[in-house]
Amino acid sequence: MGQIGATARGGSCRLALTDEDHRGRELFIGWCRAAHCEVSIDRMGNIFARRPGTDATLPPVMFGSHLDTVPTGGKFDGVLGVLAGLEMMRTLDDAKVSTLAPLELAVWTNEEGCRFPPGMLGSAVFAGQASIEFGLSRADRAGKTVGEELARLGYASTTLVGGRPVLAFLELHVEQGPELEETNNAIGIVTGSSAVRLYEVVVHGVDCHIGPMPMARRRNSLVGAARVIIEADRIGRAYGDSRSSCNFIDVRPNVNNVIPGQTRFNVDFRNSDQESMTPMEADFHATIERLSGEMDMKIDVRRYWKHGPVSFDPRLTGLLRKTAGRLGHRHKDLVTIGGHDAINMNDCAPSAMVMVPSQAGLSHNEMEYTAIADCEAGANVLLASVLEIAMQPALLETGSLEKVAG
Amino acid sequence: MGQIGATARGGSCRLALTDEDHRGRELFIGWCRAAHCEVSIDRMGNIFARRPGTDATLPPVMFGSHLDTVPTGGKFDGVLGVLAGLEMMRTLDDAKVSTLAPLELAVWTNEEGCRFPPGMLGSAVFAGQASIEFGLSRADRAGKTVGEELARLGYASTTLVGGRPVLAFLELHVEQGPELEETNNAIGIVTGSSAVRLYEVVVHGVDCHIGPMPMARRRNSLVGAARVIIEADRIGRAYGDSRSSCNFIDVRPNVNNVIPGQTRFNVDFRNSDQESMTPMEADFHATIERLSGEMDMKIDVRRYWKHGPVSFDPRLTGLLRKTAGRLGHRHKDLVTIGGHDAINMNDCAPSAMVMVPSQAGLSHNEMEYTAIADCEAGANVLLASVLEIAMQPALLETGSLEKVAG
Repeated sequence: MGQIGATARGGSCRLALTDEDHRGRELFIGWCRAAHCEVSIDRMGNIFARRPGTDATLPPVMFGSHLDTVPTGGKFDGVLGVLAGLEMMRTLDDAKVSTLAPLELAVWTNEEGCRFPPGMLGSAVFAGQASIEFGLSRADRAGKTVGEELARLGYASTTLVGGRPVLAFLELHVEQGPELEETNNAIGIVTGSSAVRLYEVVVHGVDCHIGPMPMARRRNSLVGAARVIIEADRIGRAYGDSRSSCNFIDVRPNVNNVIPGQTRFNVDFRNSDQESMTPMEADFHATIERLSGEMDMKIDVRRYWKHGPVSFDPRLTGLLRKTAGRLGHRHKDLVTIGGHDAINMNDCAPSAMVMVPSQAGLSHNEMEYTAIADCEAGANVLLASVLEIAMQPALLETGSLEKVAG
Repeated sequence: MGQIGATARGGSCRLALTDEDHRGRELFIGWCRAAHCEVSIDRMGNIFARRPGTDATLPPVMFGSHLDTVPTGGKFDGVLGVLAGLEMMRTLDDAKVSTLAPLELAVWTNEEGCRFPPGMLGSAVFAGQASIEFGLSRADRAGKTVGEELARLGYASTTLVGGRPVLAFLELHVEQGPELEETNNAIGIVTGSSAVRLYEVVVHGVDCHIGPMPMARRRNSLVGAARVIIEADRIGRAYGDSRSSCNFIDVRPNVNNVIPGQTRFNVDFRNSDQESMTPMEADFHATIERLSGEMDMKIDVRRYWKHGPVSFDPRLTGLLRKTAGRLGHRHKDLVTIGGHDAINMNDCAPSAMVMVPSQAGLSHNEMEYTAIADCEAGANVLLASVLEIAMQPALLETGSLEKVAG
């Protein structure tokens, strides 16, 4: 899979619904069919590879992740969870194991959201958080929509997205942070996700010539943005297990001899503690108001995404913990500060995640690496846990879209 | 001219050597021919409209400016000096006036430099500051070169750029700052230009996921750039009649979920006092070194342009001053902090500039405006001064490319 969209420094570039992503999907589907799975695709382009169970009335145990990457991504992010799922299907075939509940390996469309913000789009529509109209109408910077690109790639479908029972959803993923490595654990049991608040900020200055206008009379929106960015960075360090980042910027007109009249950028706040998010956001709003006054520049702030914190199903995290211990892997509990499809799926099915260490905590970086032994450990924890549910579905209430009570 | 590349808010967008710039050039050339001028174009695409003198051995008195604009430019910047020159040619025809020396109205290619940095490119090659190879090989962000675009537009030429005597060069231009308006003067006599130092800065961080990586271990190159931008702004306010600006930025990968590993941007320092430029630059370098250490991020700094201060020819500025007074216009001396073709031309011919007020000091802004009465005053000062030189060329040493001693 890493040969498709390979980058110069050993990473991957398969932005959602590009030709590279399409080649990755086709390769994956071929492998699934060779492993005797039934492949279906829904209207969001989500792919499901199904291995039937012996009781056709049961909903599936679902697992999987995503194949799309950021522009300079690594080879493990998303792909590990997908290929581990494929290997599980092959292993069960080799061992001639039948399960009571069917198994489904899911590949979610546009998890990264670099090309079509927001991310985790395919699973959001599946879980009922976003409408199919919203999903298909997301557009890239060139104006191409998800729906148009699915049609172009031959992935247009009439299959409803979600709206069907899922017994449980489990996702294996690389940690993307340094905690497992630093604590010498092979396995992370993800008990939930942090609170996430996403903002778009627009600083309004005045276009003018870079030379003659005296400094005191300038309104340089990029300088204004720089001050907001530094304050957002401060806030991200000040509230316990908090994070903040500004990583996208659009300066207009962005040329070498015009003071830019408008600068737009993102601010991403996260906190594993819901209680701390409120003062973070209050600090941010007060800071914006102060800076706007000091600089005499209008600043628009729009919160366009609010999610979490989310708690995963404690019976599933308990099962994962028990399985990791039984297989002899050092493990610890984690709260994920990254976004993942399992966080969306938790809205429509009992869900949880297994994580494995990222070397030096690096991810969304071409040098991203996870030791093969750790990948194997994670895949085995996933396989054993999935088997336990698929063999004894009564462990979870079945046939219901309601979230299972913890 | 303002109808070509007209923008929504009343400005102009004619980036150098685009189809819009080409339409402006063709319109201008048609007008010049209708005014009985001989039109020639050199290898840089500079246009010269010549009105013969009675002494064919004399070099021309040259005047003009540019027709290209910034992306959201006004209707006066550059265009005023060109169309005032055209109106001078028409006026002399109407009045059946012959001059001893020939007159040449110049339109310089790529003055703004937004599409092909650096700016003032056509006049730089003419004045011998840059080679023709350098000029033709400048490329836009899509990789298209000046030479390719000149050929595409039918402006490829074999005529040498410069290398011929020019009796004097005078440029009429809008001030682009507020000083004339604030002091209630109609005319600025530009005695010279400020020192200009242009830098490219690259901050090197580390690509990583925006969520899990702890704040203390992140190296967000955009946050690093924000700190440099704020310090550059401080330096621009701290050294007398100084300026600084950061107005172009390139963040990689510039997506919503990757901490950007590299941010590149410009820093433009100006000072009307040469002595103050040295401590400004020293402050900047010391600041960069301190920030690089504090943030643990490598910062590359490259000075790619160094120009000025320049002193215009005192006999020409004296002539302009005398003419403005004789015509009854309130005037004051200025040092220009913007870049202009006349600053380059000063290297190969005695040069000077006349400026007229910009409303609220605004330029490189669609709202740019200069009162028509002020445009007329400036054009008349230019016409009367050009006539005086063209009628009595002995006022200046002739036939020499050497700069006339002040």
